[in-house]
Amino acid sequence: MSTRLEHDLIGDKEISNDCYYGVQTARAMENFHITGVTLSKFPTFIISLAKVKKAAALANFELGLLAEKKKNAICHACDELIAGRYHDQFMVDMIQGGAGTSTNMNANEVIANIGLEFMGFAKGEYKHLHPNNDVNLSQSTNDAYPTALRVALYEKLGELNESMAIIKGAFAKKATEFKDVIKMGRTQLQDAVPMTLEQEFRTYAVMIGEDIERIREAQQLVREMNMGATAIGTGINAHPEYTKLVESKLQEVTGRPFVTAGDLIEATQDTGAYVQISGVLKRVATKMSKICNDLRLLSSGPRTGFNEINLPAMQPGSSIMPGKVNPVIPEVVNQVCYQVIGTDVAITMASEGGQLQLNVFEPLIAYNLFNSINMMKNAFETLATSCVCGITANKERCLELVLNSIGLVTALNPYLGYENSTIVAKEALQSGRSVYDIVLEKGFLEKEQLDEIIKPENMIRPKNYGLSEKHKIKPVV
Amino acid sequence: MSTRLEHDLIGDKEISNDCYYGVQTARAMENFHITGVTLSKFPTFIISLAKVKKAAALANFELGLLAEKKKNAICHACDELIAGRYHDQFMVDMIQGGAGTSTNMNANEVIANIGLEFMGFAKGEYKHLHPNNDVNLSQSTNDAYPTALRVALYEKLGELNESMAIIKGAFAKKATEFKDVIKMGRTQLQDAVPMTLEQEFRTYAVMIGEDIERIREAQQLVREMNMGATAIGTGINAHPEYTKLVESKLQEVTGRPFVTAGDLIEATQDTGAYVQISGVLKRVATKMSKICNDLRLLSSGPRTGFNEINLPAMQPGSSIMPGKVNPVIPEVVNQVCYQVIGTDVAITMASEGGQLQLNVFEPLIAYNLFNSINMMKNAFETLATSCVCGITANKERCLELVLNSIGLVTALNPYLGYENSTIVAKEALQSGRSVYDIVLEKGFLEKEQLDEIIKPENMIRPKNYGLSEKHKIKPVV
Amino acid sequence: MSTRLEHDLIGDKEISNDCYYGVQTARAMENFHITGVTLSKFPTFIISLAKVKKAAALANFELGLLAEKKKNAICHACDELIAGRYHDQFMVDMIQGGAGTSTNMNANEVIANIGLEFMGFAKGEYKHLHPNNDVNLSQSTNDAYPTALRVALYEKLGELNESMAIIKGAFAKKATEFKDVIKMGRTQLQDAVPMTLEQEFRTYAVMIGEDIERIREAQQLVREMNMGATAIGTGINAHPEYTKLVESKLQEVTGRPFVTAGDLIEATQDTGAYVQISGVLKRVATKMSKICNDLRLLSSGPRTGFNEINLPAMQPGSSIMPGKVNPVIPEVVNQVCYQVIGTDVAITMASEGGQLQLNVFEPLIAYNLFNSINMMKNAFETLATSCVCGITANKERCLELVLNSIGLVTALNPYLGYENSTIVAKEALQSGRSVYDIVLEKGFLEKEQLDEIIKPENMIRPKNYGLSEKHKIKPVV
Amino acid sequence: MSTRLEHDLIGDKEISNDCYYGVQTARAMENFHITGVTLSKFPTFIISLAKVKKAAALANFELGLLAEKKKNAICHACDELIAGRYHDQFMVDMIQGGAGTSTNMNANEVIANIGLEFMGFAKGEYKHLHPNNDVNLSQSTNDAYPTALRVALYEKLGELNESMAIIKGAFAKKATEFKDVIKMGRTQLQDAVPMTLEQEFRTYAVMIGEDIERIREAQQLVREMNMGATAIGTGINAHPEYTKLVESKLQEVTGRPFVTAGDLIEATQDTGAYVQISGVLKRVATKMSKICNDLRLLSSGPRTGFNEINLPAMQPGSSIMPGKVNPVIPEVVNQVCYQVIGTDVAITMASEGGQLQLNVFEPLIAYNLFNSINMMKNAFETLATSCVCGITANKERCLELVLNSIGLVTALNPYLGYENSTIVAKEALQSGRSVYDIVLEKGFLEKEQLDEIIKPENMIRPKNYGLSEKHKIKPVV
Repeated sequence: MSTRLEHDLIGDKEISNDCYYGVQTARAMENFHITGVTLSKFPTFIISLAKVKKAAALANFELGLLAEKKKNAICHACDELIAGRYHDQFMVDMIQGGAGTSTNMNANEVIANIGLEFMGFAKGEYKHLHPNNDVNLSQSTNDAYPTALRVALYEKLGELNESMAIIKGAFAKKATEFKDVIKMGRTQLQDAVPMTLEQEFRTYAVMIGEDIERIREAQQLVREMNMGATAIGTGINAHPEYTKLVESKLQEVTGRPFVTAGDLIEATQDTGAYVQISGVLKRVATKMSKICNDLRLLSSGPRTGFNEINLPAMQPGSSIMPGKVNPVIPEVVNQVCYQVIGTDVAITMASEGGQLQLNVFEPLIAYNLFNSINMMKNAFETLATSCVCGITANKERCLELVLNSIGLVTALNPYLGYENSTIVAKEALQSGRSVYDIVLEKGFLEKEQLDEIIKPENMIRPKNYGLSEKHKIKPVV
Repeated sequence: MSTRLEHDLIGDKEISNDCYYGVQTARAMENFHITGVTLSKFPTFIISLAKVKKAAALANFELGLLAEKKKNAICHACDELIAGRYHDQFMVDMIQGGAGTSTNMNANEVIANIGLEFMGFAKGEYKHLHPNNDVNLSQSTNDAYPTALRVALYEKLGELNESMAIIKGAFAKKATEFKDVIKMGRTQLQDAVPMTLEQEFRTYAVMIGEDIERIREAQQLVREMNMGATAIGTGINAHPEYTKLVESKLQEVTGRPFVTAGDLIEATQDTGAYVQISGVLKRVATKMSKICNDLRLLSSGPRTGFNEINLPAMQPGSSIMPGKVNPVIPEVVNQVCYQVIGTDVAITMASEGGQLQLNVFEPLIAYNLFNSINMMKNAFETLATSCVCGITANKERCLELVLNSIGLVTALNPYLGYENSTIVAKEALQSGRSVYDIVLEKGFLEKEQLDEIIKPENMIRPKNYGLSEKHKIKPVV
Repeated sequence: MSTRLEHDLIGDKEISNDCYYGVQTARAMENFHITGVTLSKFPTFIISLAKVKKAAALANFELGLLAEKKKNAICHACDELIAGRYHDQFMVDMIQGGAGTSTNMNANEVIANIGLEFMGFAKGEYKHLHPNNDVNLSQSTNDAYPTALRVALYEKLGELNESMAIIKGAFAKKATEFKDVIKMGRTQLQDAVPMTLEQEFRTYAVMIGEDIERIREAQQLVREMNMGATAIGTGINAHPEYTKLVESKLQEVTGRPFVTAGDLIEATQDTGAYVQISGVLKRVATKMSKICNDLRLLSSGPRTGFNEINLPAMQPGSSIMPGKVNPVIPEVVNQVCYQVIGTDVAITMASEGGQLQLNVFEPLIAYNLFNSINMMKNAFETLATSCVCGITANKERCLELVLNSIGLVTALNPYLGYENSTIVAKEALQSGRSVYDIVLEKGFLEKEQLDEIIKPENMIRPKNYGLSEKHKIKPVV
Repeated sequence: MSTRLEHDLIGDKEISNDCYYGVQTARAMENFHITGVTLSKFPTFIISLAKVKKAAALANFELGLLAEKKKNAICHACDELIAGRYHDQFMVDMIQGGAGTSTNMNANEVIANIGLEFMGFAKGEYKHLHPNNDVNLSQSTNDAYPTALRVALYEKLGELNESMAIIKGAFAKKATEFKDVIKMGRTQLQDAVPMTLEQEFRTYAVMIGEDIERIREAQQLVREMNMGATAIGTGINAHPEYTKLVESKLQEVTGRPFVTAGDLIEATQDTGAYVQISGVLKRVATKMSKICNDLRLLSSGPRTGFNEINLPAMQPGSSIMPGKVNPVIPEVVNQVCYQVIGTDVAITMASEGGQLQLNVFEPLIAYNLFNSINMMKNAFETLATSCVCGITANKERCLELVLNSIGLVTALNPYLGYENSTIVAKEALQSGRSVYDIVLEKGFLEKEQLDEIIKPENMIRPKNYGLSEKHKIKPVV
């Protein structure tokens, strides 16, 4: 295996000639054995780094700071990365010290060496195309890295929203299918008042729909980036016109509406947008976990639980209990949600720990946001296709529970008043008898009146008291 | 002490005739000895409950469901609460089971009894004005409680933003004052490149300004309320026109743009807005904690730390070390921020734990959001008035650190290239000598050129390479 | 109102002659308007401060560093505080900057002034008894404050364990009462295999019993204290024999086995014991929350839920739904548990944020640990007396669910093998028929064999396969 | 590619003949596309599963429930796994629904098929050796999975403690090396009193040493396992003597002192030990993060920070700032610590979410505990070898800061009293002059007295007031 000798602040180092990365990447690979999860596992991030580097090269060229053939070589190399090639050269651990410098240098070195070969030189002949002087020109890790992170997050949040739309659609479709299933609503796990299974499932679709909006808002926050900030936001070593120019180049290269932050010093140290995104992911996780808890409750049984719906059987549920089928898909989604919620704490601490002009813990933030989004995306699509789409309702069981319920008494409130209704409810509860029989026996209402009031379809929406007029009973005013 | 006998589902109970609350409040007071912190400690919440009850009474009256004299009595009672009277009658613990029913009933009972006296009856003569049948008419805890919570949060978030504006203003004023203080920027606690103390403090103002925007957005989310939902959102026992009407009455009573949620079943069980608000409060806390960490770092010393700024001395710092002055104000703000961040986890769990048609843990959410906002408000105003306003800069010390720094070498990058610059930096570090001397000694630049390049005021913003033209050195292209 | 003039590093200040606290307390009261919750709300903490001060005075006297009449005055003042008097003089906010200096000085000042009066002097005549030179002699906030915190925590953890013993006892008593209630066990909310309600409730008692052990271990950790450390643990200004002496005096004054840490520098900055305690409180909260979730599930209904047990009705459950009774006690306990879990994050961050020789955020840690313990204590006693003690079982309902269940098929596994058993279960599920009938119909077992195998009392514990011998069927080997 | 047809509750499925896993594993692979991180990444867990299965087989054989040749085949297969072979057959995602059933069945199937080949049969001929009837005999996922988890955790915690010992040793060695480096201690980032760098580093060693004890205690908690519990802890389908027997077999196979829990129903649903372990890991992370924060502070500079120590340069620190060296190793350790702290929240929620007789979220707990331990182990060893071992002290700089400090005044307290000392400190601070000069000028002490009192080596430990006798000044009594 042939090698080349590279050099940095620390000294000389042999690098295999197979490698497109260089000495600084090699040092980082030695320094950071933490998760074993390398940059190469996050292709969107690598592609985003390449887009940022390309935008910078185009701007530098236009300002006369970068020779045309260097610009062409850099653009070629970036396009290769954007096309998905050479990703195996991104070997640094995602969790790394140095605020992302190792990631940025990994990109700079790989781009330089692809570019050098494109120019007809050998890898490592950096005098023709230099990772720092050329590829990183007018940049610092402290602007290029967070900008690439934001370019990547913009895409990933879009992908997440696609999966949100899928699970939203699955619930909406089921809601329509369950239009005629009348069931008891429950508050505090106690029998409340009737509703339809459509209403229950529609709620989930609406809930997810609102979260899609919140994610979209969060996505807008990452449009703000800090190219031109260089080291700490003062723009040292950047041309006065560079900031404006690189903004338009980045828009062009990404096709996305990225904009330069109003205050680059602030933008360089501030990680508020990540905390906000993480907070929104947590919100989504909180609600999706609640939905999965509900699905598991509603399908509990089959004989000793609520048993109102059936989740599709995906696998045998037990190594010892034959025939047992478990709600394995909601269960795995719950776990993803807990993970996202816990991860939010890690992101928050990483953000809080940033000091003075830079937050050095952005690599942890990047790692966690990407992981959370990827897991949620996988989990939500699984929930849609392997669970929600196949849910069936136990319509008779649902109706039977309504007719047998004490909660019907609530509908009598406007006619009997809260106190008489309480008497009926209490007696039903203690005797095990039905609300219906007790009301009639006590002569509180005529049978015809009662039949109309507690008709389930009359109880699932607001209702005009005209009803009572017709039956000659007045609601309590 | 005279008493009256009240009655509920559980049975009879003696209530002191001094009390405006009734039997259900009394039960809750017995049941919930948890924090010892009662509703009465949160006047904005009580006032909001009263506004909700008043809006409902006005709507019920207009629909012919409530007699005029009852409406008048309820409105009078609500106005008394809004004026800050009778708050000592709100004696239930803020952390309570029952999804807020005890809070809602406390309000219903107090309003009924104030109303009864206004009508010329004795407390407890509920046949003339009933807590459930009249005060709670067309409502359930499940719509009245969260709506009152949202009305209160809208006000509290507004108050928080006022305190945010104060601390933002304090930083902005100091920034202007520190315009001429040139200092070293630091990344990763290591010397980076020069900046001004104005830039450092301006950043804090900008950062807080962005958070004000995020709070404002969160405030918009709580405008959506679910009056008309009644028990589970189906609107059982509510008149079909009530929902629309109570919305306009609530707008009228509060003077705020509250709107009815699009799906009342969803709105009744969903606590996403609270999680989002808490996430935004956490974001604010994260950044304010970072700012306080910075203030403590920058004022560290006086002799063995950074010592770039002086915080005003607020109190002796030690019981044993004479003359010690500590950054007690930033320290207390840090602690408030940690508390808010931890509280977010509690709120998240409360939200996730909601089941089916209702989230029973809203009382914990309310308690925590109110506490977090109150503490932040207090802390931020304290930070502004007792710390930031009195900060002074050690201008000479700041400049001396710049001139002595190795970070100046960064400015040479465009002229010497990254590698030669590295050589200079390394030598300066090892020898303890200045970058200035080494560059001249090595003949990399003429003295005149060097003087211009590393003039601090040239390093704190982007700069045209025309400079180099003048000095006949070309940046590396 | 007469005043006296006091003086500190900041300058002069008028103090009301009514006040036993002095200038430094007054400054802290002005500086820290955060929670409004003052030291006076935590009597155990004040008493612990007094015990620490008394122990120090006794040690100082014995070393000849403190005159006898000063020692007597200090001891008198401490005894007054220990007896519960003068607590209203502890007016500083619990959340404060300065690492507890304000709390320590509040104690020093109050003790000095009580002592001065005891000596026949006026408050403020500190030349006769000085808050720093005498009351705080050989001490620093950095050893006296955390030692007082530990003395208090030792007591509070003991109190918590008393309430744990109460709730454990309540579950154990119920378990014995529910010996004969056979019911279905559930895993993943799906029907599993039979058990008794005794076994279910015994589990809760055992679980809590284990937590009592963990709390006891955590209590041992706070026995280690750092008196003698003074400012940073080096013992500056402390007599070489003081550390040993004050340890024995503290044991004497408290009657508890407190010991000096092995390394005082470490002990002064380390907050690991608090994090560990908080972690254990979180563990307890996690399990108690799970238990409450179970109680709410098992009592869900009455008609549309599991309905295996009944919780005592504590209050009407709804302002709109008559007769509704909710599990309000478990619900409030859940909320306390969420709060404790969130608080753990705040404590963790406060601990992580400590820098170099001292953790300045101990006041937040103290505030949170005390609050968590107090709330848990209240909540667990409430759970025992207002809920668990009154639980009744629906014995017939439980049995009916067992007999109707498919889970019985698990017991056939050793005789039919996993695959045949699966066939039976699947058919039962699809047809709605009983496992019993299907097994007989398929001729897998004789009726007599089957009766014995699925007799519920045979399924709730391990069983000898001798059974199968008798019936001439061999388990699958 | 040849296939075999396998069958389960869901129906038939083609399985490649290359695969040692079977139909249930294949279903789980389809169902759970979540993290992409499979069981095969956690070899210790696979080995532990094999040990559990082997112990069960040995116990079953001894009870006459398993034929000898089946026992031999199972033991052979387990030994293969223990030797590290066939791990690529463990293809299920670590985050999975079903409480670990898929993991357990993956093990059962792989063991059955290895065993079948060993017996001379083809894979899939389960009538000769059945995954459920034989490999899983007397077991359920609900005892085998958590027991394997505990067996694995026992080993992993041992490994973690080895890395803790390494980092502890590194700090201890440095402490000894820094014996003569006198420096200022700091509290609240403000100058406090002198100490040695040895004392500072010794503290870290002591701190880590205490954590080693806490981990050891936590390790003891996982010794308790629930083999024999089967489905829910009642031991259904387990032979009455099996529990005792499998305990001794497990001890034999693992060589570790595992013991059967006292109450198997409790042990099957309880996840308290995991929460406790996670709490201890969080404690360790909290302290290690604090230590890394300190290292970064102490090495801040080189010119504008504390600059008391130098961390070894591991890689160039910046893509734009030549010569910059950053504390990348402590930075990466900080991030690992934040991750562990966040993960604790996920584990806590997973534990809290368990319902009734089983916690279905154990797979998330397992995934997180393994990840946290692995990352910590890697991070701590990196910290030792790539950072702490190479730290050097700037001895002169440290001493200069001491001599220049105002903190010296604390040592004068016993001679001048707190108030005169305050006057000296205040004047030094305002004038910029030294404490030394001011004391002499004011005539508070003779030069000779003063020299002895503030000799640094006299200030770093408790000191006898005999000193003052000699100098004829008495400490204030």
